[in-house]
Amino acid sequence: MEWQTEIMAAQQRVAGHIVETPTLQSRAFGQDIALKLEQMQHTGSFKTRGAFNTLLALDVPEAGVVAASGGNHGAAVAYAAQKLGHRARIFVPEIAGPSKIELIKRTGAELTVVPGEYANALELAEREASESGAMQIHAYDAPLTVSGQGTAMLEWEQQGLDADTVLIAVGGGGLIAGALAWLGDRRKVVAVEPMTSCALHSALDASAPVDVPVSGVAANALGARRIGQICFDLATSLDVQSVLVSDGAIIEAQAALWQAHRQLVEPARATALAALMSGAYVPAPGERVAVLVCGGNVAPDPTFG
Amino acid sequence: MEWQTEIMAAQQRVAGHIVETPTLQSRAFGQDIALKLEQMQHTGSFKTRGAFNTLLALDVPEAGVVAASGGNHGAAVAYAAQKLGHRARIFVPEIAGPSKIELIKRTGAELTVVPGEYANALELAEREASESGAMQIHAYDAPLTVSGQGTAMLEWEQQGLDADTVLIAVGGGGLIAGALAWLGDRRKVVAVEPMTSCALHSALDASAPVDVPVSGVAANALGARRIGQICFDLATSLDVQSVLVSDGAIIEAQAALWQAHRQLVEPARATALAALMSGAYVPAPGERVAVLVCGGNVAPDPTFG
Repeated sequence: MEWQTEIMAAQQRVAGHIVETPTLQSRAFGQDIALKLEQMQHTGSFKTRGAFNTLLALDVPEAGVVAASGGNHGAAVAYAAQKLGHRARIFVPEIAGPSKIELIKRTGAELTVVPGEYANALELAEREASESGAMQIHAYDAPLTVSGQGTAMLEWEQQGLDADTVLIAVGGGGLIAGALAWLGDRRKVVAVEPMTSCALHSALDASAPVDVPVSGVAANALGARRIGQICFDLATSLDVQSVLVSDGAIIEAQAALWQAHRQLVEPARATALAALMSGAYVPAPGERVAVLVCGGNVAPDPTFG
Repeated sequence: MEWQTEIMAAQQRVAGHIVETPTLQSRAFGQDIALKLEQMQHTGSFKTRGAFNTLLALDVPEAGVVAASGGNHGAAVAYAAQKLGHRARIFVPEIAGPSKIELIKRTGAELTVVPGEYANALELAEREASESGAMQIHAYDAPLTVSGQGTAMLEWEQQGLDADTVLIAVGGGGLIAGALAWLGDRRKVVAVEPMTSCALHSALDASAPVDVPVSGVAANALGARRIGQICFDLATSLDVQSVLVSDGAIIEAQAALWQAHRQLVEPARATALAALMSGAYVPAPGERVAVLVCGGNVAPDPTFG
């Protein structure tokens, strides 16, 4: 896979459809940190990049698209499908929560709320896709999804990213896979997961993707039962450092983002910052660090809650 | 007053103390709009610029500083005083609300909550300053406050602001005065006020600052009873266009900022955007517009509410 070529092509495709999200140099968290504020993306998360990239790269069948999602991917696919005039059917687990469910409904997509966790929604989405002939867009383990997410890191470098090390939260691994695919070994990437949902960490320990239990404050956005194969392969070949943070550290980082910069994000999106604030990752002297803040669909919606 | 020189000096002074706030090009509000996200500033508003500029330009007496404020200025003065090691005493009206009051308390400043509106708090602050020998920092009608706020526009131009017209919400007029002082007639500035608190609009009508009633959703941040003289003089000499928006339009713009970019701001800070969304200001064909989003201390604090 020529990842860099794919990601540059993805950037051409999604230009004009996505938000070029701002960056911020912050000294508010005890050290100098470069932040990219991907929560300002359409539908509130980086997932919109992969959704548009997929829908624009492929011929979408009359039956439209199907996606299973903890919530953010479903909202992104529903939004992109609406903008591009395709039918969308989205399957989310109950834990997606009212804010993401409302967001998906607003796009006009057909929505099915599935009891249980993400894996259950995925099972139903796969059945629906095979029965209807609709295109299924995987939330993280598909090349077009990964190369779409990779545009976030390409864009950040074009904005002048000045960092040795980039910390990225990991759920199913689509965003970090995109970042690794773009960066290769040019910068150090640190994978950050909640102790309560750590599919990549467990896979690296076991030397293969394995099923993990998912729970905790970030489960509805980072609660993948098994890491994506694309992410696992990239993380293994690039020898990515993996760190874990507690739910308490995540909640503290979420509050700190609001207090310091009035950025209200869901717990999952404060996970990477939590690694720096809690000392789960300690930069070497002089090491310049960056944190990708990747989404913000808090529940309840604070303006309509 | 050599405003440009003052504002460049202010930028030198406050560098390292303030956040260089990000900008965003948005197509989410029905037209292409450049936004500067000043709510990411320390304490959540541009007021921090004027507070640091004043404290760094003058010799602060042993008795410290006194400020009266609808809430945001008080929080900014309290924060700057804490960082620079000065004693601070802040007077806010009841309508400042729990979120701003908590923010001020957290800095360790002495806080007095005054019944009634901003003008009542100002009266007490003035008395306290004259009795204690503390320095009073006016929220908007002092040259060092205005030149501090002017650094927001200077910074935006350095970040490559590409706009013919900049829309700015007006309360007492400190921010727009700083913008006018920096820009002169190089760009068009549009003053936006709530119909329920429109000290500048009324002053322009009357050809002199006059007392106005203040109420409505943005009153705790834009509810100055009388426009500042510095602002009035600049607005008059530069023939600023003044538009009014309804409380309903402000609430809609506040919700739109959350839905489109996950920016949670208080109603006052959505006021300038409301002028574009409601049609209170209609750009000419091809006119490139920009909106200064200037603060975000919503109540209740969404992470601690």
